[in-house]
Amino acid sequence: MSTERPKVAFYAALSNSNFTGPFHTDVTLKYSKVFTNIGNAYNPSTGFFTAPVKGLYYILFTVCGNDAESYSLYVFENNQRIMCNVEHKEKHGLRYFTNAVALQLVAGDEIHVRLPSGHGIFDNGNNHSTFNGFLLFPL
Amino acid sequence: MSTERPKVAFYAALSNSNFTGPFHTDVTLKYSKVFTNIGNAYNPSTGFFTAPVKGLYYILFTVCGNDAESYSLYVFENNQRIMCNVEHKEKHGLRYFTNAVALQLVAGDEIHVRLPSGHGIFDNGNNHSTFNGFLLFPL
Amino acid sequence: MSTERPKVAFYAALSNSNFTGPFHTDVTLKYSKVFTNIGNAYNPSTGFFTAPVKGLYYILFTVCGNDAESYSLYVFENNQRIMCNVEHKEKHGLRYFTNAVALQLVAGDEIHVRLPSGHGIFDNGNNHSTFNGFLLFPL
Repeated sequence: MSTERPKVAFYAALSNSNFTGPFHTDVTLKYSKVFTNIGNAYNPSTGFFTAPVKGLYYILFTVCGNDAESYSLYVFENNQRIMCNVEHKEKHGLRYFTNAVALQLVAGDEIHVRLPSGHGIFDNGNNHSTFNGFLLFPL
Repeated sequence: MSTERPKVAFYAALSNSNFTGPFHTDVTLKYSKVFTNIGNAYNPSTGFFTAPVKGLYYILFTVCGNDAESYSLYVFENNQRIMCNVEHKEKHGLRYFTNAVALQLVAGDEIHVRLPSGHGIFDNGNNHSTFNGFLLFPL
Repeated sequence: MSTERPKVAFYAALSNSNFTGPFHTDVTLKYSKVFTNIGNAYNPSTGFFTAPVKGLYYILFTVCGNDAESYSLYVFENNQRIMCNVEHKEKHGLRYFTNAVALQLVAGDEIHVRLPSGHGIFDNGNNHSTFNGFLLFPL
């Protein structure tokens, strides 16, 4: 066994297309602007992060809303919804919320986030809506 | 001395009971839903995180308010209040804020957070209000 | 080459002087209250964080607004603006947003944040507005 600690970290922002949603169903968010993807554990074509080794992973996201009725995010660990955050807009302009989880995952476990039906999320070239994570240590 | 890096990380959410507070005094928050507690440095029966070794610790929290006059958090390093954040609600619905500290602690140092008197914090099965931390490296 | 992993982490809050800005030009924010600066990579007299080694760096900030028309932050990697976040105030009181990036930097790369012209940021002894970062692993 190598003494080298596996290196896994990603950082992506959602899109340059301003509004994503609202949709009539929940939609997996595919953060398409991948700035960092060491270990290639994040797949921008699916939006899924897949743990390459057993370990403790830290995942943080910031959601930006803009002129949507409300903006929200579901966080999934495999097929289980482990978090939901939601804010309602009060007037025009951008608003943000951030949350984070630190999870013990085994190789193959997947994390993704979904936009709940009826909610919108905003991003443009400023990278308002972001998703990042890293392996803190293997277990 | 072992070459093994000590592994410490926790992630907990507050409760499933919707509203905590407002109270007439400051109250230590005991995040009872412990999803991760590698190294057992976080004690949900007291709400205290105790550094097991000297090192650099990263602590992050997200506070959710809901229909409270305001929501707020004090962060304590031992008996010293090292941070206070507060937001006032503007109308019904959830709101969040997040903040983080990176602190050099010695073994036995304790971190906890308190709900200031007169403020409320919200959580339910969606894990809106969270508290996490980890040892980045020993010193 | 040493097998010792380089240790780099900083945590600073902006100031004790309540309001910074709004100004007529963009201004580099110098977070003057340095609570942690392992490796001395953050320079409070310039506000710049300079990567001492090639690696993956995690940078997180929380911006607090108070009675300003709006509050905002530009994040710069060297001379390139890599992120902008902005919120408009709705009534009196504090408001926060948080965002984070995970970046692959080489030795000498610099990260700093700027307050866009026309925006204000708030801090006092409670450490509302914070800036932190760390080397997750060398590359």
